[in-house]
Amino acid sequence: MGSLPLDAPILPLDPESFADDSRAVVDFLAEYYRDVDKYPVRAADLEPGRLRKLLPDTAPELGEPLEHVLEDVRRDILPGLTHWQSPSFFAYFPMNASAAGFAGEMLSVGLNVVPFLWAASPAAAELETVVVDWMGNLLGLPRRLLFSGGGGGVLQGSTCEAVVCTLAAARDRALAKLGGHEAIMKLVVYASDQTHATFQKGARLVGIPPDNFRVIPTSAASGYGLTADAVRAVVDRDVASGLVPLYLCATVGTTGLGAVDPVRELGEVARRHGMWLHVDAAYAGSAAICPEFQGYLDGVELADSVSMNPHKWFLTNMDCCCLWVASPRHLTSALSTNPEYLKNVGTNGTGNKPAAAAIDYKDWQISLSRRFRAIKLWVVLRRYGAVGLRGHIRRHVTAAKWFERAVAADERFEVVVPRRFSLVCFRLQPRWSGDDAVDDVNRELLAAVNETGRAFMTHFVVDGKFVIRLAIGGAMTELRHVMDVWELLQGKAVEVLQATRYNKV
Amino acid sequence: MGSLPLDAPILPLDPESFADDSRAVVDFLAEYYRDVDKYPVRAADLEPGRLRKLLPDTAPELGEPLEHVLEDVRRDILPGLTHWQSPSFFAYFPMNASAAGFAGEMLSVGLNVVPFLWAASPAAAELETVVVDWMGNLLGLPRRLLFSGGGGGVLQGSTCEAVVCTLAAARDRALAKLGGHEAIMKLVVYASDQTHATFQKGARLVGIPPDNFRVIPTSAASGYGLTADAVRAVVDRDVASGLVPLYLCATVGTTGLGAVDPVRELGEVARRHGMWLHVDAAYAGSAAICPEFQGYLDGVELADSVSMNPHKWFLTNMDCCCLWVASPRHLTSALSTNPEYLKNVGTNGTGNKPAAAAIDYKDWQISLSRRFRAIKLWVVLRRYGAVGLRGHIRRHVTAAKWFERAVAADERFEVVVPRRFSLVCFRLQPRWSGDDAVDDVNRELLAAVNETGRAFMTHFVVDGKFVIRLAIGGAMTELRHVMDVWELLQGKAVEVLQATRYNKV
Repeated sequence: MGSLPLDAPILPLDPESFADDSRAVVDFLAEYYRDVDKYPVRAADLEPGRLRKLLPDTAPELGEPLEHVLEDVRRDILPGLTHWQSPSFFAYFPMNASAAGFAGEMLSVGLNVVPFLWAASPAAAELETVVVDWMGNLLGLPRRLLFSGGGGGVLQGSTCEAVVCTLAAARDRALAKLGGHEAIMKLVVYASDQTHATFQKGARLVGIPPDNFRVIPTSAASGYGLTADAVRAVVDRDVASGLVPLYLCATVGTTGLGAVDPVRELGEVARRHGMWLHVDAAYAGSAAICPEFQGYLDGVELADSVSMNPHKWFLTNMDCCCLWVASPRHLTSALSTNPEYLKNVGTNGTGNKPAAAAIDYKDWQISLSRRFRAIKLWVVLRRYGAVGLRGHIRRHVTAAKWFERAVAADERFEVVVPRRFSLVCFRLQPRWSGDDAVDDVNRELLAAVNETGRAFMTHFVVDGKFVIRLAIGGAMTELRHVMDVWELLQGKAVEVLQATRYNKV
Repeated sequence: MGSLPLDAPILPLDPESFADDSRAVVDFLAEYYRDVDKYPVRAADLEPGRLRKLLPDTAPELGEPLEHVLEDVRRDILPGLTHWQSPSFFAYFPMNASAAGFAGEMLSVGLNVVPFLWAASPAAAELETVVVDWMGNLLGLPRRLLFSGGGGGVLQGSTCEAVVCTLAAARDRALAKLGGHEAIMKLVVYASDQTHATFQKGARLVGIPPDNFRVIPTSAASGYGLTADAVRAVVDRDVASGLVPLYLCATVGTTGLGAVDPVRELGEVARRHGMWLHVDAAYAGSAAICPEFQGYLDGVELADSVSMNPHKWFLTNMDCCCLWVASPRHLTSALSTNPEYLKNVGTNGTGNKPAAAAIDYKDWQISLSRRFRAIKLWVVLRRYGAVGLRGHIRRHVTAAKWFERAVAADERFEVVVPRRFSLVCFRLQPRWSGDDAVDDVNRELLAAVNETGRAFMTHFVVDGKFVIRLAIGGAMTELRHVMDVWELLQGKAVEVLQATRYNKV
C-alpha cells in the first residue's frame, strides 16, 4: 500500500496490492461493526457544510496510500454519518448489512460483469432467474409470477424503479388498447393516503397527468388499509367521466404505519376494470418467508406484479429489490431496445445456439447496464438458509411484540395502530392536554431521545396525530436493544412531561 | 466459517466471522485476477439453461459454510461468465474494476448508509457534492455546472437514469410554460442515428409520444457527428407544424463508432429554440481529464446537463454515473417528494440548524433509496490521483493508436472511421468481393476470433457496413494484449479469406 511514484503506471488489479488494500478495508469494517454501538446513532454533527469545509476544492494530483484514505474516513466521514447498522437504529425502515450480503456484493463488485444481455454473462442472467424463483417460492407466491409458471422476476435497485417499470408496462398496454398516445390524458392511477410517495413520483415520471393520480383516504376503522369500497367509489366516478382506470397499488406493510391493504379485495376491483394491480411488499415481504405471515399476501394471484426489498429486512446489503410480473411480455414491450451494437449470439439466435431461455435483462428494467445482484442474494440464501432467515425475522417480531406490550401497559403511552410486523407506532398520551399539546410533547420526546445519540427513531402523522415509529429490523438489533430504548423513552418521557407541566403552570 | 447449527440464531455482523468470510472472498478474487487471462473471455458455455439445470429449484433450508458457496462459484458460475475484467475484453465498452474502486465500494457496502436525505447521513451527501465538483473540475466543466457555481451534480447508477431524470426535468419545465399536461403531445426529442438507444427508451418512459422522437441521420462526411444544419432542418419542420422542440442530445464518443457531436453548434441550436441540451459523454468523458481531449467538450457551457460514467474507463467498479445540471431547481421540481415520514432536521429546518447546503439527493434521482457511491469515486480519486488516472487513459489511447496504424498498414484491412479515443472500428476489405460478401467475411472473422476465447470484440453496422469494434479500456489491458489480438486477427483473417476464396471457386 506504499505511495505511487510520480507518473508510475498504476496497476489497478495487481493481485497482491488488491489483496493488501482489500484486507485493510475488511479490518476497518470489522472494527466498525465491533464499535458501531458506541457512535451516536444519528449523525452527531448536523452542521450543513461541515465536511465540505474540511476537504480540498480539487482532486489530488498524486495518488495516496490507502491508509491515509482510511484515516480520513475515520476522522472526517464517520462522525458525519448516521449509523444505519447500529443495533439502536429504529428509524425509517432499517437496511440490513450482513457478512453474507457483503460477501455476495464483493463477488459482484469484484467480478464486475454486466449481465445486460444474456450473452454478456450467461451464468449471471441465469442465476438471477433462479434466485427470483427461489425467493418467490419462499414467499409463497403463485407459480404464475415465477419463471417456472410463465411469469418471471428481476432484481432491480429499488421499489421506485420497479414502480416506474410496471407503470410504463401498464401504460403501454392500455395505450395499445386505446389506440393512440393522446389517450395518456385519460389514464388514472390509484393509491391510498398511506401508499409510498414513490408511486406518485413514478406516475408523474411516466407521464400520467398529475391530476389523474388519486389518493384515496383510509381510516382507523380498516387499520389504515385501503378498502375495496373506497376504491370502487372513486373508480366509478372516473369511469363515469370518461377516464380509464390504469393501475392500482396495494401495499402490504406501509411505510408510515405498517398497514396492510386487502390484496384479494383490491385485486377483484382491479380485474373488473382491467387495471394493473401492483403489490408493494417492500418491507413486509421479507416476513412472508414465515408461513404465519403469508396470509397478508392472500389474493396475490390476482396481481400483475409484486415487489419486495431484500435490502430492508433480509440481510442483503443495499441495493436489491425483487420484482415479479405475471406477464413478462408487457414489461419487455415497454422497455425493449435492440440496437445493432447489442445484437449477439444467444438471444438473437445469430449464433448456432437456440435463443430460448436466454433472457436479456436490459429489457426488464430502466437502465441498460446493471450489476450482478443475483450473486449477492444467492450467497445470503445459501449462507443463512431459509431457517436462519426465518429466525432473523421472528426475533424482530418477538421484540416488537414485547415493546408493544410494554407501551400498552404504561398508562402514559398509547399504541396508535395495531402492530402487524416489527414496526410499532406509539405516542405519549397525557390525559390533561389538548391535541396540539400532545403533538408537541411527542415531538419533544422524539427529539430528546434522538439527541442522546443512544437510539434513532422517526415519526409519522396520521389523522393529524404526530406518532413515533419504532422500526425494528437492524442486522444487529436484539431484544436487549429494544428494552434499552424503552427505558430511554420512559426516562425522557418523565423529563418532557415535567417540563411541559411546568410551562403550563 | 463453520456451518450453522439448526435454528441457532445467525449473527449477521459478528466482527470475527465477518472478517473471516470477507478475507476468503478477497483471496478468491485475488486468485481470479491472477488467472483471469486464462479463462475464455466470452463465456465458454453458451448453452441457454445450463446453470438453471445445475441448481436446485428451491433455496436451501439450512445455511452452509462460505467455502461451499465459493466452490460452487468456481465450478458452476465462473465457466458461464463473460470475463469483463480480462485484459483481452474489447467488447461493448469495457467496465473498469480496480483495487481502489473495490475498496471504495466495500466501504459503501459495509457502512451501508442510505443518504437519501441529508440528515440520513450528512457526510455521505456532502462527500457526493465534493466529488462531483472534483470530477467536473478535472473534466474542465464550466462553473455553472458545479455546486461552486450554482449548478450541481449527483451520482447515479447509469446514463439511462440520468437521461430519464433530465428528460423529466425538461418536460416539466416545458409543460409549465405551455400551461397544461396535454401539451405533452407536442414535445419533440432529437437525437442522431448514432445516439445511444437509451435516449429513445428514456423519452418513451417519460411519456413523450413515440412519434415525436426524431432520429437524425449522420454520415461519413461529418465523421458520423450530428450537424447543426441537420438538426435545424428537422426542428424548423417541427416548429412549422406546431410542435415544440424539447430536448437535444449531443454525444461525445458514441457507442457504435466513438463519434463526436459538435457541442457548441448544437448548443446554439438548442438555445435558439429553448431546448434542453444534454451532453452524453458516458465513455469518452473520462478522457477529458487529459487536457488534450477537453477540446471535444468545447461549448459545454451551453449544456443544461452533462453525464459521464466513471464505471466505464475510470477505474470505478459498477455502478457510477456522474450527472451535472446547470439548474438543480428544474431537476428537483420534477423529482421531489416530501412525505411526512421523511421530514427531518436539516433540510426542513425543523431542527435548530439552518437548511442551507443540506441536499436531499432523493430529489435528484428516480429512486428514494440510494447507495453511498461518493465514497467509491472519492477513494479512486485519492488513491490514484489525477496523474495516475491520466496515465491510465493515455496508455489505452496509445495502444489504440498503435492498433489503428497496424490496421491501416495492412492492405487487407481498413479503418472505417477515424479513431478519436481508444475505440478502433475496422474491417477486412478484400478487393475481390461485393458488399454483402465483405460483411459475411467480417462476421466470420469476428466469430472466429471470439470463438478462440483469447479475445472478445463486438460489432457495429454503419451505412449498411458490418464493422468490428476494438474497444480498449480494461483495467488490466496493456499494449501487449492489443498486439496479441492483432496477431490473432491477422491469423484468423488468413483462414477466413482462404475459406471464402475456396467457396467462391
